[in-house]
Amino acid sequence: MIVVLKPGAPQGVVDVLVGELQGWSLQTQTIVGRENVVIGLIGDTSSLSEDRVQELSPYIDRVLRVKKRFKRASCEFHPERTVVRVPTANGPVAIGGDGPIAVMAGPCSVESEAMILETARRVKAAGAQILRGGAYKPRTSPYDFQGYGEPALELLAAARAATGLAIVTEVMDSTDLEAIAEVADIVQIGARNMQNYALLKKVGQQPKPVLLKRAFSATIDEWLLAAEYILAAGNPNVILCERGIRTFDRTYTRNTLDLVAVPVLRSLTHLPVIVDPSHGTGLSQFVDTCSKAAVAIGTDGLMIEVHPDPSRALSDGPQCLTPDEFEAVMANLAPIARSVGRPLASQLAGGPLPH
Amino acid sequence: MIVVLKPGAPQGVVDVLVGELQGWSLQTQTIVGRENVVIGLIGDTSSLSEDRVQELSPYIDRVLRVKKRFKRASCEFHPERTVVRVPTANGPVAIGGDGPIAVMAGPCSVESEAMILETARRVKAAGAQILRGGAYKPRTSPYDFQGYGEPALELLAAARAATGLAIVTEVMDSTDLEAIAEVADIVQIGARNMQNYALLKKVGQQPKPVLLKRAFSATIDEWLLAAEYILAAGNPNVILCERGIRTFDRTYTRNTLDLVAVPVLRSLTHLPVIVDPSHGTGLSQFVDTCSKAAVAIGTDGLMIEVHPDPSRALSDGPQCLTPDEFEAVMANLAPIARSVGRPLASQLAGGPLPH
Amino acid sequence: MIVVLKPGAPQGVVDVLVGELQGWSLQTQTIVGRENVVIGLIGDTSSLSEDRVQELSPYIDRVLRVKKRFKRASCEFHPERTVVRVPTANGPVAIGGDGPIAVMAGPCSVESEAMILETARRVKAAGAQILRGGAYKPRTSPYDFQGYGEPALELLAAARAATGLAIVTEVMDSTDLEAIAEVADIVQIGARNMQNYALLKKVGQQPKPVLLKRAFSATIDEWLLAAEYILAAGNPNVILCERGIRTFDRTYTRNTLDLVAVPVLRSLTHLPVIVDPSHGTGLSQFVDTCSKAAVAIGTDGLMIEVHPDPSRALSDGPQCLTPDEFEAVMANLAPIARSVGRPLASQLAGGPLPH
Amino acid sequence: MIVVLKPGAPQGVVDVLVGELQGWSLQTQTIVGRENVVIGLIGDTSSLSEDRVQELSPYIDRVLRVKKRFKRASCEFHPERTVVRVPTANGPVAIGGDGPIAVMAGPCSVESEAMILETARRVKAAGAQILRGGAYKPRTSPYDFQGYGEPALELLAAARAATGLAIVTEVMDSTDLEAIAEVADIVQIGARNMQNYALLKKVGQQPKPVLLKRAFSATIDEWLLAAEYILAAGNPNVILCERGIRTFDRTYTRNTLDLVAVPVLRSLTHLPVIVDPSHGTGLSQFVDTCSKAAVAIGTDGLMIEVHPDPSRALSDGPQCLTPDEFEAVMANLAPIARSVGRPLASQLAGGPLPH
Repeated sequence: MIVVLKPGAPQGVVDVLVGELQGWSLQTQTIVGRENVVIGLIGDTSSLSEDRVQELSPYIDRVLRVKKRFKRASCEFHPERTVVRVPTANGPVAIGGDGPIAVMAGPCSVESEAMILETARRVKAAGAQILRGGAYKPRTSPYDFQGYGEPALELLAAARAATGLAIVTEVMDSTDLEAIAEVADIVQIGARNMQNYALLKKVGQQPKPVLLKRAFSATIDEWLLAAEYILAAGNPNVILCERGIRTFDRTYTRNTLDLVAVPVLRSLTHLPVIVDPSHGTGLSQFVDTCSKAAVAIGTDGLMIEVHPDPSRALSDGPQCLTPDEFEAVMANLAPIARSVGRPLASQLAGGPLPH
Repeated sequence: MIVVLKPGAPQGVVDVLVGELQGWSLQTQTIVGRENVVIGLIGDTSSLSEDRVQELSPYIDRVLRVKKRFKRASCEFHPERTVVRVPTANGPVAIGGDGPIAVMAGPCSVESEAMILETARRVKAAGAQILRGGAYKPRTSPYDFQGYGEPALELLAAARAATGLAIVTEVMDSTDLEAIAEVADIVQIGARNMQNYALLKKVGQQPKPVLLKRAFSATIDEWLLAAEYILAAGNPNVILCERGIRTFDRTYTRNTLDLVAVPVLRSLTHLPVIVDPSHGTGLSQFVDTCSKAAVAIGTDGLMIEVHPDPSRALSDGPQCLTPDEFEAVMANLAPIARSVGRPLASQLAGGPLPH
Repeated sequence: MIVVLKPGAPQGVVDVLVGELQGWSLQTQTIVGRENVVIGLIGDTSSLSEDRVQELSPYIDRVLRVKKRFKRASCEFHPERTVVRVPTANGPVAIGGDGPIAVMAGPCSVESEAMILETARRVKAAGAQILRGGAYKPRTSPYDFQGYGEPALELLAAARAATGLAIVTEVMDSTDLEAIAEVADIVQIGARNMQNYALLKKVGQQPKPVLLKRAFSATIDEWLLAAEYILAAGNPNVILCERGIRTFDRTYTRNTLDLVAVPVLRSLTHLPVIVDPSHGTGLSQFVDTCSKAAVAIGTDGLMIEVHPDPSRALSDGPQCLTPDEFEAVMANLAPIARSVGRPLASQLAGGPLPH
Repeated sequence: MIVVLKPGAPQGVVDVLVGELQGWSLQTQTIVGRENVVIGLIGDTSSLSEDRVQELSPYIDRVLRVKKRFKRASCEFHPERTVVRVPTANGPVAIGGDGPIAVMAGPCSVESEAMILETARRVKAAGAQILRGGAYKPRTSPYDFQGYGEPALELLAAARAATGLAIVTEVMDSTDLEAIAEVADIVQIGARNMQNYALLKKVGQQPKPVLLKRAFSATIDEWLLAAEYILAAGNPNVILCERGIRTFDRTYTRNTLDLVAVPVLRSLTHLPVIVDPSHGTGLSQFVDTCSKAAVAIGTDGLMIEVHPDPSRALSDGPQCLTPDEFEAVMANLAPIARSVGRPLASQLAGGPLPH
């Protein structure tokens, strides 16, 4: 940590500060510049906050952290890339580690047995490995459809039994976690709960992999520190999911999909990173091009909303693809995926190839 | 709701759409402009989302909601201003309704019996009615101090017994709600949980007033819809708290305090609105001027961090005032409060007046 | 235009408003909903601002524009895609219209004859058609290098003579426009001048194509209206350039590259759209993946900073590629470009193909 | 400047870097921490950009500037507060330096002789010292009213002759500067031209004071560096004007008025700071409360839009006050101004006091 003093800080203040800092079992080294004095702290500063140091004296201009605050999530601490492995009846699905690109697809909400089964069969046929579907839905208004809850979980289990697809579904409250984790192969933390630390600790204490969506305005550091909560609680299988951030313009897309977060994260963390172009833009017409760009920029996977009849969807219709549209997207992705050296998982599996 | 069709939408499409919309028990009225056709929907559209309509046809350019989505929180539905009343040993404290300005003050975290008692006594002497103090703390890093939990709740109870101040403290997880609500006179939902809808429903089902902080990047509509969750669950006593939003510049303040949200909210909702200049700026040196501005712009109350020794605070030290500084802030506020016709509660009470 | 009245607006007010609006040579049609009255305006509202209407009565809740404010830039007005053609000694370069992807490359600033000639030869060899290079540089600090001005223009002319590459360079002040337009094949308006309307009008009155960069926080509408200034002044050859927007997180990239703006713009305007991943991220390490994503998402071209020795660059060193790195980026782009059906211009030209 | 190396940077790299930096006439001091090596640079780094240093080696993690980049604008360089003095027929007007609060008022655009004279008389009677009025208007759309140009300048001169008020009006293009500076007592640079550096240099070379509005998304540092351009060109009389920034929510106000920028700026710069609540919110209904808050938070002045008939205004009608409303605002401000110890200039002048 580096402590920058204001111009004109008296030598007496510097001495008192150095004494205080050394009292915290830190070594110090002082640099006397032309106008400012700078004190470098040497030792373990991981549990020390910049705020704490800042408060020591009004002569402190700024405190600069040299080391990043996330540790278990960082490449420095864990150089090999994490591959999250999900066993399914169709064989294991691996996400991350420069392997093939995994695809999660399905409706925003589970609405009925027929719709979830049809969707599951169609997305599997088009090349998805994982079925998404919400049982508990975070909705901006209390008057919007809130999800069918436990009965929807049973329908997801039925869809898995019928197709062998893995299941990813969202948990919103720790009291539902046990029931969800029983059905889910991957437990999702939604954007609105990314800093619900009580929930992060609890999903960190259970064994299923966790898909951690980025909050609307989370910085990269805050997002990785949210992942750190899960890792620190004992669960090493965290998948990061970029789903669009909030910016000053929402006229033509619901959010601004931060595709560059993918290579930025790959430079900082070993955790897999996937992209959700459906929420990221809010409009189905942009899912095709955004998926291609996500693959080109290095994503480890995609999460795409598919509904048999988007105009009847109980939530998020405008961003849902039809099964036919999803099939076309998958076919368009295949050559891009090949050309960046990371085929779609379905291409590799010798499974049902997009034509 | 207003449905705007794209230029060139064929008459057949218009007819099909009108038929569909009328099938939803809505009346329609069509306006044929020079380039665009517009369809107005007449009837109860409160449970209908714009998305749902948008998906009906690719010829739809936009769907515009005429009515606001929040209802119980709106001035139109509830014209008289809500006054949240909190009984205390020093007499009832009223927040809102153009009455006197209520002041909540205290440390970020409850750290020990001595510090919370000293703080309570000092902030009471300076004119606060309500003691703030965190037992459960949402911290960006899992390695930061997380609050002392239940023992801290007991210390808050002791501080109330000793001073008669009301207590406001944060709940982060629904499993802690019962224990917190037993001690708290006002239950706080922090910024990171503003859209934790499961938690909002639960605080809406218990009787204590709820202080709802604005999320870092919540729009006014999202914030009022979060309040609507609590109101719809049966709890009419919601206090909104502006605490700084996230913008493009964080060099000199931690957040951007959105003071104009106060008059904007007063034009939209009957709920009381308070301001937290400590979190809103992140720096104690700006608390005095920001508090004055908050009073001048029409706040119903203030929430200010005070710590007997900010440089030893376990969290948020740089934004804490010392008790002496807090006393000075209160003294500076008094003439402004009088000049906008809304004295500080302490001025009115004939209680310990700032000199 | 749609005028939404507040709930409870008296019939008398509605009648007065309708009379007023009809006095403006507009027809009106009134929709009486359950709570709100809505008035639709029929006729030419292009020169009428929402503000003007809003002021007519305090009973007006909102005024909603149905038609977009940009016209010459819109697909509706001009359905065929614009192709901007730049004649060069190596044959014409075409930008836009689903044709091959044009590449502009070169240093931030022109620093010397040797460096600009070397850069020009190297970027041409790697497949660029257009040389970028700044003679006049907008720098945040007055103490930073401001560009060499007219002498740098002469060096650009020499580089064109030596290589046949077209030249794109920035104009910052209308008094320099004539000299710049004499040398430039494309005149660039930088992000900081995107709403310098006096300058936009002047570049619209001269014949060279204009590259219009997006301002740091320009909405899509504001950007297209800036283009509209140039189009309305008589110059139809405008190229839009996305170069990163300002968001809440600047820790790991200088800006947030808004790649999704490319398909959004393609749905709204016929003008070509290119991407600048160098400014968009500010770091050379992200240029390769971002360029690939830009091609995958549908860009018409790329603008990339290349410097023979980035560590000696007088400006923007950290975002410059070396010529070798640029060659590698071009080689990596080729298969993506082919797989989206839009080869690089250099691939098509039978010119110097990336190996 | 502080150079932080990545963990594991070899000693050889450190040695080469130190040699390179010393070759730039800088002294270095190295701190060897537990994981990172940090190099402090001692000497004159004002003309050295962080970018330049960053590029020296891929082992550099970050370069941190210790000194602020603005110098002439800073309190450290110039501790006494600047007072900008404007001579008028009614006596000198002083802005800044903890003196009385100056008020600028008038229409967005100058529309006719009658309207500008009436407005001038009314705002003078209510207590303004300076008349604002646009002759050249930056409008988002080329089809909106662009101002009457030179004839409007003559009308402003006439209004000054009739009332003795000083004149502030905007310059958009350097070719108009001479004509504008002849009439204006204060030359305004609008938000869209805050980083039009060619124009900043030119207003810095002429003698009239400059009002520098903050760009929509300018950081505090960028804004002060824009002021630095004017100061460095020789003009010491710069007034900063906060007029609202761009954030994620524009539903209820046009911009987010960043009132806290006032005390932040006062801690960094000696230049006067004023607030424009009319543009800052875009709605006349919020001008009263925002003006009060601006005064309470420490502004040196206010700029308020007033129009004799806002519903007929050619631009910005919804944010204009009527003369009667402006009179009421001034009357409401008086007690707040007194209670913060900075009366309105009109209160002090013994001039026409708000009743």
